[in-house]
Amino acid sequence: MRQEIQAAHGRIRGWVRETPVMAMQAGAFGVNARMSLKLECLQVAGSFKPRGAFNQMLRGGLPAAGVVAASGGNHGAAVAYAARRVGTRAEIFVPGISPAAKRAVIERQGAELHVIPGQYMNAYEACQQRAAETGALLIHAYDQPATVEGQGTLALEWEQQQPDLDTVLVAVGGGGLIAGIAAWFERRVRVVAVEPEMCPALHDALRAGEPVDAAVGGMAADSLGARRIGSIAFEMSRQFVDRSVLVSESAIRDAQAALWREVRVAAEPGAAVSLAALMSGVYVPAPDEHVGVLVCGGNVALDSLQ
Amino acid sequence: MRQEIQAAHGRIRGWVRETPVMAMQAGAFGVNARMSLKLECLQVAGSFKPRGAFNQMLRGGLPAAGVVAASGGNHGAAVAYAARRVGTRAEIFVPGISPAAKRAVIERQGAELHVIPGQYMNAYEACQQRAAETGALLIHAYDQPATVEGQGTLALEWEQQQPDLDTVLVAVGGGGLIAGIAAWFERRVRVVAVEPEMCPALHDALRAGEPVDAAVGGMAADSLGARRIGSIAFEMSRQFVDRSVLVSESAIRDAQAALWREVRVAAEPGAAVSLAALMSGVYVPAPDEHVGVLVCGGNVALDSLQ
Repeated sequence: MRQEIQAAHGRIRGWVRETPVMAMQAGAFGVNARMSLKLECLQVAGSFKPRGAFNQMLRGGLPAAGVVAASGGNHGAAVAYAARRVGTRAEIFVPGISPAAKRAVIERQGAELHVIPGQYMNAYEACQQRAAETGALLIHAYDQPATVEGQGTLALEWEQQQPDLDTVLVAVGGGGLIAGIAAWFERRVRVVAVEPEMCPALHDALRAGEPVDAAVGGMAADSLGARRIGSIAFEMSRQFVDRSVLVSESAIRDAQAALWREVRVAAEPGAAVSLAALMSGVYVPAPDEHVGVLVCGGNVALDSLQ
Repeated sequence: MRQEIQAAHGRIRGWVRETPVMAMQAGAFGVNARMSLKLECLQVAGSFKPRGAFNQMLRGGLPAAGVVAASGGNHGAAVAYAARRVGTRAEIFVPGISPAAKRAVIERQGAELHVIPGQYMNAYEACQQRAAETGALLIHAYDQPATVEGQGTLALEWEQQQPDLDTVLVAVGGGGLIAGIAAWFERRVRVVAVEPEMCPALHDALRAGEPVDAAVGGMAADSLGARRIGSIAFEMSRQFVDRSVLVSESAIRDAQAALWREVRVAAEPGAAVSLAALMSGVYVPAPDEHVGVLVCGGNVALDSLQ
């Protein structure tokens, strides 16, 4: 997949931002390691998701009906944003449980918003039906090769910025991001998958030896709450992910608060799980290990930061 | 002063963060220029101020009584933070008008906080008196060479990160920051000074040909509200600043909102004036001009961002 990620990078650069990395001072966050942050929360539309969305739209041959997507938030915002930029129609199907802040981002981009009562799965079914009716391109949030290849450009970019990374900590929801990152690094850099205890789709799948239905709950459910890990993510993780760890709700809350307090970075709960793994000691690096912490989204309700 | 800034850089690196820069996509913020952001709001203690504070404390010979400072906020937080890190005592004198969010940052660092009724000048007098009593080192917020040289390290670092900058836009309060930046660049890069219309200390001084008392008001007064520009800043600006411009309150508000909405960067009003100058057309770059926008502080009340 590395070649496809390289091609995706050529395709989408100029449409997405090269998000910055920042080295933290020794002892930051109470963690004894060389640590740096990759601030993907500063990406257009507030998360890594536009990488995959642009890669889908720029491969050529977009139908006249445009694109459709189902998403509890960030993927929907990304597809809406990318559609506006490339000049195509977008319809986004969001489940009733999705937060108002994320819906507002979608609507501001001029996409047609359909709020479907129930969970993600209900929104996804409505989206599939619409694609069948209109011929629009359905852009899956994580389980399509072009989505995964787009997300993988984050790892390519990160490696260019910091060629001496030993380990990266990556949040997992449906798995599009970790699939692309693991596929790019191919174990040249240690990839640690981090999930909330209350959304353990990859963790459960790796234990069971295949994707299985998992719990969906907790404060990060709106971004990481996939019922079942994607099949691409499962395969890539089996091959190239070093370890899968889980973090508690309080660890997520502490990490989110610390990012705001110490760095003035606004991270959504799902984007704070990577730092939570370090701060709570679920992942303990060697003293000289260079650990890259990915902060992958910033579409947060501000009142939760104080 | 360039040699002193170089020396300051050697002294304080390891204590402060190298804050990231990020190139913006074409047309971002509705501005037709090559634009990048220098995200100094991610600095320790939430602003550029620790650069000067550390430089003061690390030059050697700190008195047993430690340090004292007067500050409406960011300088106080920076001195408190640096004092804790280097292991010396700090007493901070804040005027009654300073916002609670900034006081909280000071107290969290374990500094002794004195709230003095009235304006900055009252706090400053109390601080001077205390320094005379105890022999503590008084660290001025802007009008001391070691403070200015510390702030100048920001320009040195920025130039290393982006050697092709044509112009930088810099907020001015008492002028410590612009003095250091202008002294480093020595017109090799165009330095544009930006102040709120309601806090025009440098603008008024340049017109009058000497520092004069100016208005202090508006939404950025807590960080940019100096009654009179510092004498070092006045001299450096006369020599090395290309232009002094003013921005309206609504332009500041729009820029602050845009930084949050488009980039998920939390900027305080005083740190949004640089972007405000571009967005409101007070400074119009040439189409291919590479403009660096300094976002110099993030100690903001979150409810103001939404």
